[in-house]
Amino acid sequence: MKNLLIGQSGGPTVAINATLSGIIKGCRELYPDAVIYGARNGVKGILGENFVCLNEQVQTNSQAYALETTPAAALGSCRMKLPANLSESIYDNIFSTFKRYNIGAFFYIGGNDSMDTVEKLSRKAEEMGNPIRIIGVPKTIDNDLPFTDHTPGFGSAAKYVATTIQEIACDCAVYPEPSVTIVEIMGRDAGWLTASAGIPRLFGEDCADLIYLPEVNFSSDAFLDDIRRKFKEKNNLVVAVSEGIHDEKGTLYGADPSGSKDVFGHTMLSGAASRLSELVKRTIGCKSRSVELNIPQRCASHCLSATDISESVSLGRAAVKAAYEGKTGLMITYVRRPGKQYAIDFGSVPVAQTANKTKYVPKEHILPGGCDVSDELLRELAPLIVGEIDAPRRAGLPYHFKIK
Amino acid sequence: MKNLLIGQSGGPTVAINATLSGIIKGCRELYPDAVIYGARNGVKGILGENFVCLNEQVQTNSQAYALETTPAAALGSCRMKLPANLSESIYDNIFSTFKRYNIGAFFYIGGNDSMDTVEKLSRKAEEMGNPIRIIGVPKTIDNDLPFTDHTPGFGSAAKYVATTIQEIACDCAVYPEPSVTIVEIMGRDAGWLTASAGIPRLFGEDCADLIYLPEVNFSSDAFLDDIRRKFKEKNNLVVAVSEGIHDEKGTLYGADPSGSKDVFGHTMLSGAASRLSELVKRTIGCKSRSVELNIPQRCASHCLSATDISESVSLGRAAVKAAYEGKTGLMITYVRRPGKQYAIDFGSVPVAQTANKTKYVPKEHILPGGCDVSDELLRELAPLIVGEIDAPRRAGLPYHFKIK
Repeated sequence: MKNLLIGQSGGPTVAINATLSGIIKGCRELYPDAVIYGARNGVKGILGENFVCLNEQVQTNSQAYALETTPAAALGSCRMKLPANLSESIYDNIFSTFKRYNIGAFFYIGGNDSMDTVEKLSRKAEEMGNPIRIIGVPKTIDNDLPFTDHTPGFGSAAKYVATTIQEIACDCAVYPEPSVTIVEIMGRDAGWLTASAGIPRLFGEDCADLIYLPEVNFSSDAFLDDIRRKFKEKNNLVVAVSEGIHDEKGTLYGADPSGSKDVFGHTMLSGAASRLSELVKRTIGCKSRSVELNIPQRCASHCLSATDISESVSLGRAAVKAAYEGKTGLMITYVRRPGKQYAIDFGSVPVAQTANKTKYVPKEHILPGGCDVSDELLRELAPLIVGEIDAPRRAGLPYHFKIK
Repeated sequence: MKNLLIGQSGGPTVAINATLSGIIKGCRELYPDAVIYGARNGVKGILGENFVCLNEQVQTNSQAYALETTPAAALGSCRMKLPANLSESIYDNIFSTFKRYNIGAFFYIGGNDSMDTVEKLSRKAEEMGNPIRIIGVPKTIDNDLPFTDHTPGFGSAAKYVATTIQEIACDCAVYPEPSVTIVEIMGRDAGWLTASAGIPRLFGEDCADLIYLPEVNFSSDAFLDDIRRKFKEKNNLVVAVSEGIHDEKGTLYGADPSGSKDVFGHTMLSGAASRLSELVKRTIGCKSRSVELNIPQRCASHCLSATDISESVSLGRAAVKAAYEGKTGLMITYVRRPGKQYAIDFGSVPVAQTANKTKYVPKEHILPGGCDVSDELLRELAPLIVGEIDAPRRAGLPYHFKIK
């Protein structure tokens, strides 16, 4: 009997722990005698043999439920890119640890960059003739992974964005004087999360009056024209902008003047909304403020989508089933069933096809002028935010599950 | 039979509409035949005779409940200071409108600056020998009004801050590398809301490791020492700072370099957390980011305190009872009952005593060094965030009540 290993990697979401719980549940069901190890801080935990025993840590249903409603990554995360050359010694270290712990399947929950790790490790295993199963389990609030209908964590982030935008629209409408409130939303390459700022309008609620995605070039002149045009309809405008809006040369509107880059070479961003707000004050002369939704977009477990969390748990189970059936080198996916009633099945795709690719909002869903999205797109996103979770609370506060 | 008038003024909170609903309920109970008018945009609505009939607008229990769980000010708000000289014509305009609509009592829901309006109007009424009752009903997320145990709207804002800080602490702990996350919280003069970032620790949950209130002078050198000291205990620090932190000369750490002021002469603030985050990167050299909780602190109706909302409705009823008993020129207050079990009664205070005064966090609750608050203070605040509200939702989104 082989043992199992789970790791979490990349930026946190509110659904990563739901998927972790789903994998633990799936392992208990299909591998009842295996030790379920968790690697702390992803691949770093494998390299440092920093393992916890999840059979012991998550025993009861109430522990599993608390884990599923706790944000971020209970095992800790890392941002680490494995070398392109599979003969480097780091791979020997990883595979000798797999051997020492008798690991039969490794599940890696992560985003765009993390699937690269899954791809390299499964290719290395194949080279070695090692039968270990390596399965990638997606997550990202950005919804920008290809081959899956949507990503775990996106539904809850979209619900937080849509809810908060609707509330901000209420707040901004209290004064009769003209005002522009600019809300900056995460997603530097793909505008899915920013687009969700429009969902409330499907139900007659106030939300973003203008929506700017990174999929189209941003022009501050066109933006000012849009504001002036909207002011003819109403006095208090709410604008949703992606943190990744950029001009036709690709220069980010909110680029950090210091030019800092993260470990993957991505430019660090700050302040697109703040800069636009200053522009509005300076040129239009009305009251304007900016709100950066920031970290709460990816950790607001007090505003979970029941659809997202339930699917994320089932996704974990589907990953274990794939390993149990002998599959490897795959990323598990959501497949939306055709028809009016929203429902999904689970599928998979060779991870080599997915790594380092981005799924953008299709151009046909961005309205001419680039300042809004289609209702069709909003109707596609709307089912993902449905349902509330009655997360465990104590004295009015969330109860967060910790892996010790 | 006289009619009744209600107005809302000042910055929005999530509890103003609960108080509005409470006043409407109280009016229906004690003045069953009166017309209940709502003035749009506070005093501006009185001057412009921009009234709505609330008997018609809020008829059913489900309408009242939706109103109570809708953020901001359903009647609209204003920021308007009445002149000091009571013989100015604006007062004649207001009182002739009162007469024309046969107003017997006027309820004004507002904050620190709004009680000034209540005080002037009630003093003018007294001068005129006009028997109209003018009652101030407090609200502010800042909790900085004197003579009341706490303020309506504060409990929900504190719950949002405490919950969000707890979630951010989870998010920031996922990477092993040292990091400092600085969270900026509203409250420019008083640190009650910032202090609430410590509540989760009473229940063993992660939250702010350092807390800086505007009640003490802020020193960036001492701040850096505090960070270095805390780094000996843990790697991922969360810091809560008030937007109003300032040095010993009174210079705001986050002052807008443009020096803008609002209509009450308050300096506009921006970016204390952002500036501190840059300071940490520059001097300590670790990863640091800033989060400004911004508008959602005062409009996040998806995270209401049931205690706050229920008290805010009852406060509205208490205001009507005071008018019915012939009282005027008062602000209604919360009075906490002595004893271990949290409970409140309703009281009142002559509004002349309250206007333009600020209730600060007492110095004895700020720990030596000024980088934290006492557990005693947190235990005093904790009951105010207890209880969840099952607000009406549609397709996963809040359903917001609108006055047409």
